[in-house]
Amino acid sequence: MHLGVQFEREIFEQPKVLEDLLAQGSDGARAVAAEIRRFSPEVVLIAARGSSDNAARYAQYLFGAHNRLVVALGVPSLFTLYERPPRLERALVIGVSQSGQSPDIVAVVDEARRQGGLTLALTNDTTSPLATRAAHVLPLRAGVEQAVAATKTYSAELFLISMLSAALEDDPARWQELEATPATVQRAIDLNRDLSQLAEHYREARHFVVLARGFNYATAFEIALKMKETSYRVAEPYSIADLLHGPVAMIDRGFPALLIAPSGKTSEDARAVLANLRARGARIIAMSDDTELLGGVEDSLALPPAVPEWLSPLSSIVPGQLLALALARASGFDPDSPRGLSKVTLTL
Amino acid sequence: MHLGVQFEREIFEQPKVLEDLLAQGSDGARAVAAEIRRFSPEVVLIAARGSSDNAARYAQYLFGAHNRLVVALGVPSLFTLYERPPRLERALVIGVSQSGQSPDIVAVVDEARRQGGLTLALTNDTTSPLATRAAHVLPLRAGVEQAVAATKTYSAELFLISMLSAALEDDPARWQELEATPATVQRAIDLNRDLSQLAEHYREARHFVVLARGFNYATAFEIALKMKETSYRVAEPYSIADLLHGPVAMIDRGFPALLIAPSGKTSEDARAVLANLRARGARIIAMSDDTELLGGVEDSLALPPAVPEWLSPLSSIVPGQLLALALARASGFDPDSPRGLSKVTLTL
Repeated sequence: MHLGVQFEREIFEQPKVLEDLLAQGSDGARAVAAEIRRFSPEVVLIAARGSSDNAARYAQYLFGAHNRLVVALGVPSLFTLYERPPRLERALVIGVSQSGQSPDIVAVVDEARRQGGLTLALTNDTTSPLATRAAHVLPLRAGVEQAVAATKTYSAELFLISMLSAALEDDPARWQELEATPATVQRAIDLNRDLSQLAEHYREARHFVVLARGFNYATAFEIALKMKETSYRVAEPYSIADLLHGPVAMIDRGFPALLIAPSGKTSEDARAVLANLRARGARIIAMSDDTELLGGVEDSLALPPAVPEWLSPLSSIVPGQLLALALARASGFDPDSPRGLSKVTLTL
Repeated sequence: MHLGVQFEREIFEQPKVLEDLLAQGSDGARAVAAEIRRFSPEVVLIAARGSSDNAARYAQYLFGAHNRLVVALGVPSLFTLYERPPRLERALVIGVSQSGQSPDIVAVVDEARRQGGLTLALTNDTTSPLATRAAHVLPLRAGVEQAVAATKTYSAELFLISMLSAALEDDPARWQELEATPATVQRAIDLNRDLSQLAEHYREARHFVVLARGFNYATAFEIALKMKETSYRVAEPYSIADLLHGPVAMIDRGFPALLIAPSGKTSEDARAVLANLRARGARIIAMSDDTELLGGVEDSLALPPAVPEWLSPLSSIVPGQLLALALARASGFDPDSPRGLSKVTLTL
């Protein structure tokens, strides 16, 4: 059990990281929200890579659903390779990066600031190029992350995004829900602490699909990324709706499918795709707080009950992180230092 | 060779489809461009699924690089499941769908129109719900597409997007480049007409990564989708930069990697990732017009030379379609009617 010691420790640290972030970061989130309201952006552009890009995907749904903002993701190459950036005078541009180092993300923020857009950095390093170039910074306050595969910094990014959204809405009920989140994440850890037996069933599995919809579309991407980084599995994330527009054809008997299905507006879709996958003979791992849904599948991952849907990505990422850890250990890989990866990746 | 007869025929029809579209569709593209200039959108939101969503990804890069527009993709669930749509009064909202039937795409256009946004449909069926609900329609004019997996309608979507971009720029040089495109696509067909020998090398390959960057990021998505739909391979598309932020860890000896590398601004990135993949022992299929780059790889797909980078996705999709066809035939699958798929997919 010496594999993934740091990775596991950092997964377990998440409730404390979120608790501290709420205590120390909420004033900052409110101050930035006031700036955003004053600026009144026509669009939000978020530049990020890897896990941070998955957090950005959460922002795309949350800022849309709760703050009525149109959120565009990505396209750093327009700023770097092509040097043909879009107009950003009326945009809120957010760079999200644990290290704050990647030159392509910094380039997007630099250009937005030059054009008069409103710029914000979410980063764990307040001395990084990204933090010093953006007009505003919200620090992740997650402490040093030792494992190469991100866990607590991803959760901190999600939580800062949810705090920023709540501050933009200025609804006290949302803040109460935020306050309950660290305990919910702890519950998700307790429910899935040891997945070694489940992982044994997938020791030989080389590929997976990871399915979700809505707020947890981000979770599907992040779990798939953890499985790739730490367990070298070919894990592909899909929106349930997108899967049905073609890719479902590749699902055959025994194909492993992880379905992220917390109770909420996406439940009906989850049930429908579950029936479709079952008819194709897929081997299903279902993640839910709905015991009825979990009852009929081969393998299940339990989620804490009664979590507001908009905050469910903070708890539903946890069983995925722990599954990636268990798969890596079952295969003899070390998630603390995956082959050929380093903690900071610089791309242009 | 009775497998995929319609699929193959529709691939071969593409030069003619593009030629007709240019002749019959350019006035329409110019008229819609004039409306867009008058409206002067702050952001473009594109709603699409499957192959059409891949065409939307091309628009994200092209409208950004040539028209300085910020393009956001997707999130139909905000309109349908969550019923919390973002503000769209200042948005150009484009629904892209071969059939024009999927209720989620129609819902996005309906809501945008209700809010006073500018709406546009790109569809092959001008009597479809999508066409009748959008304020403006640009027909694909591709004729009936028989094969379930889209080919000529995808190309028509790309070409309409490139015509619309050229009309927004109003630059005669761009129109000259558009006029050369049908012949270029024909050349791409001629260079890759029979890939059965190459496909034999990958008869047992269950998974692939498909890599590109910039304008051809869309091509990576569309080729991966064709491989899933027609050959049931687990093919995952990546931006070269995103691959390096984690997923590259899963690439080991013999892992099949298709690298889309037409000459242009992304060439340096392509060479760098090629060296990285080679060091990991990946089995590489390179697609390029650069004979030096093709010289050092296991398998190659030739592209026509001297194609302007912004139009290269129209020719680089072709070898990918033909590779998907050859893989399907090598495995005894019928790309005309993939298992469990129908031509029209309705999602909410």
